[in-house]
Amino acid sequence: MGAELVRLRVDLGYDGAGFSGWAAQPGRRTVQSTVEGGLATVLRVPVGLTVAGRTDAGVHAAGQVAHADVPGEAWAVTGATIVRRLAGVLPADVRVWSVVPAPAGFDARFSALFRRYVYRVSDRPGGVDPLRRHDTVGWPRPLDGAAVQDAAARLLGEHDFVAFCRRREGATTVRALRRFDWGRDPAGVLVATVEADAFCHSMVRSLVGALLAVGEGRRPVEWPAALLTATERSSAVSVAPPHGLTLVHVGYPADAELAARAVETRRRRELPTGS
Amino acid sequence: MGAELVRLRVDLGYDGAGFSGWAAQPGRRTVQSTVEGGLATVLRVPVGLTVAGRTDAGVHAAGQVAHADVPGEAWAVTGATIVRRLAGVLPADVRVWSVVPAPAGFDARFSALFRRYVYRVSDRPGGVDPLRRHDTVGWPRPLDGAAVQDAAARLLGEHDFVAFCRRREGATTVRALRRFDWGRDPAGVLVATVEADAFCHSMVRSLVGALLAVGEGRRPVEWPAALLTATERSSAVSVAPPHGLTLVHVGYPADAELAARAVETRRRRELPTGS
Repeated sequence: MGAELVRLRVDLGYDGAGFSGWAAQPGRRTVQSTVEGGLATVLRVPVGLTVAGRTDAGVHAAGQVAHADVPGEAWAVTGATIVRRLAGVLPADVRVWSVVPAPAGFDARFSALFRRYVYRVSDRPGGVDPLRRHDTVGWPRPLDGAAVQDAAARLLGEHDFVAFCRRREGATTVRALRRFDWGRDPAGVLVATVEADAFCHSMVRSLVGALLAVGEGRRPVEWPAALLTATERSSAVSVAPPHGLTLVHVGYPADAELAARAVETRRRRELPTGS
Repeated sequence: MGAELVRLRVDLGYDGAGFSGWAAQPGRRTVQSTVEGGLATVLRVPVGLTVAGRTDAGVHAAGQVAHADVPGEAWAVTGATIVRRLAGVLPADVRVWSVVPAPAGFDARFSALFRRYVYRVSDRPGGVDPLRRHDTVGWPRPLDGAAVQDAAARLLGEHDFVAFCRRREGATTVRALRRFDWGRDPAGVLVATVEADAFCHSMVRSLVGALLAVGEGRRPVEWPAALLTATERSSAVSVAPPHGLTLVHVGYPADAELAARAVETRRRRELPTGS
């Protein structure tokens, strides 16, 4: 019975400033190794996490999702109190909101239908609100929010986003952009909400970088969408700073469709790029 | 003409974590000395600030207001660009949003009709959202928001709040509490909004401390209001941590009433306590 594994769904958030990104790297403080260490301490077994969104160094998360397979016995002993116990062992810059047995067929990465990110940028002449300076980028010139929204809307749909991607061997750069809204919050901060089935490496920050060039009038509103015809990464696109970016939500299908979604995702990711 | 003074209204915000409060103290980093230093650098004259709300060490502000009297010549030279220039010389934990010539009769402290503070406390079992941990207090036990709201409503009106005040020689502790609302934000954080003509020293944090004792069931809902009959500070009231507290707004009357309000405020503050 000790050999029987239970798959756990872990919901968590973090301030990315103190981490070298999500993925474990030797000698670096990463979210993955920190949370795996906390879970191992509390469950008293080694724990390996699979995550929905591998965030880069400095990028935050409010609604990150991961899964881990742990011995059923360890879960039976600790499950009821695990969230409070993790709160006691983890550092204040990463918090685990819930740990529950996952429904059948759940895979944090491959079952996901979409990822939603928020990017915050302030062009207020006085600078960034000190209490939000950890997750808001200051922009030294005024930004035209309407022009940015116009340019963003032209990117919606399924496209090859290779111009906005750091290439990874054997991975497709075709993505379906479901939502890309820009608006000002009550404090005047320009807030982007962007949603896609998945994002390739550095894609959100490259899209934001291209749109901010439109917002300050250096590029026409048609420019970001024109890059969708490119066949390689565009050197004209600058990558916006990481600390404005937060992964806020990962969407999953109804429980009955989790396994089928995982199969479909794996099939699509294996298509040759551009096919 | 160089001797003619212009009164400036300065609107600003800060993260209180790195400051020993508002008021200048020898050898300490304070908001007052930091902002006075920034203004002196930009205006090239010494500047002294009078503030609406003297916040304690660790307390934040989003909508703090101050005034300063500076030579008209210095203002004429620098006024048009002062906000951007201050953004360049001030540290990131304090920001000046605007500097404008004040209307006749304006006094940042004595013309104010009311101060509004927000207090944020999270009783989520997993802890405080890492991105809001700088202005949100974590509470290790569940809080009954309805009980807290009930107890808060009983404090409204004009009372002698001496039980909740650190006494200062010759200052009245009679205050008019205009608003004291508690609710949960979309993330589940319990947020208090409290508004009074003015607050005596440590009053907001003492009120919050008393209400949180109600929220966790250690005291009955009638208890905080029963303390209003006290004639000295109550040792049963604990002061809530400073980093949950933010001064968000200072309200002023219409321009024509600024001078009369300042006269009225000075008169009331000079009344003997309890008269």
